[in-house]
Amino acid sequence: MTEHVSLAERYIAAWNETDDAERRALVAQLWSPDGRYVDPLMAGRGPSEIAAMIGAAQQKFPGFRFALRGKVDGHGDHLRFSWQLGPADGEGLIEGTDFCVVREGRLERVVGFLDRVPSDA
Amino acid sequence: MTEHVSLAERYIAAWNETDDAERRALVAQLWSPDGRYVDPLMAGRGPSEIAAMIGAAQQKFPGFRFALRGKVDGHGDHLRFSWQLGPADGEGLIEGTDFCVVREGRLERVVGFLDRVPSDA
Repeated sequence: MTEHVSLAERYIAAWNETDDAERRALVAQLWSPDGRYVDPLMAGRGPSEIAAMIGAAQQKFPGFRFALRGKVDGHGDHLRFSWQLGPADGEGLIEGTDFCVVREGRLERVVGFLDRVPSDA
Repeated sequence: MTEHVSLAERYIAAWNETDDAERRALVAQLWSPDGRYVDPLMAGRGPSEIAAMIGAAQQKFPGFRFALRGKVDGHGDHLRFSWQLGPADGEGLIEGTDFCVVREGRLERVVGFLDRVPSDA
């Protein structure tokens, strides 16, 4: 379970890292070389593509930060956790839940779902 | 989205089917030949194993029924939905959320998580 929490925390940290080189390094350490990400709005395969995809998402919401919401829940090679995205000093405006498959300690597949999206987002 | 709702409904129907042959048929129509299921308590691979696994779960909770809880949410080849399990005429005692990966209209991978488990379950 500690590994699941660590993965979720490092995942959120990667989504919050705005320095391109630093984010690419975090993503490469966290994801499998052929790891995949998909949610209703975007998708990426492999650390380079995923790091660039996160950078593009950050551009859409400048100054916003991701934070874990509630507990990280996992069993075996699977985990889920919920998150919020909003201004660094404010409440979360967008909320979602991500589901991950882990392989050899790295993220092999992440599927994101949106729990709450403001009507004007 | 209609396909996601249909898959979720057929999935719940398979979990509620207590006739072994009928359940095996429902599972075989719903899952890929190499489809996988895993949750914190059990796992199965392929329709025969999954149908038998569901039968064993039914033995633990005789007379209980599964029902969808809330909306089915999906995008592309991915869906999630929540369910409850309890007496046919009562409220849900156990609640969970399942994440599914679909391939060619069939369930390729289902990962279940428990949202609520009574302390005496």
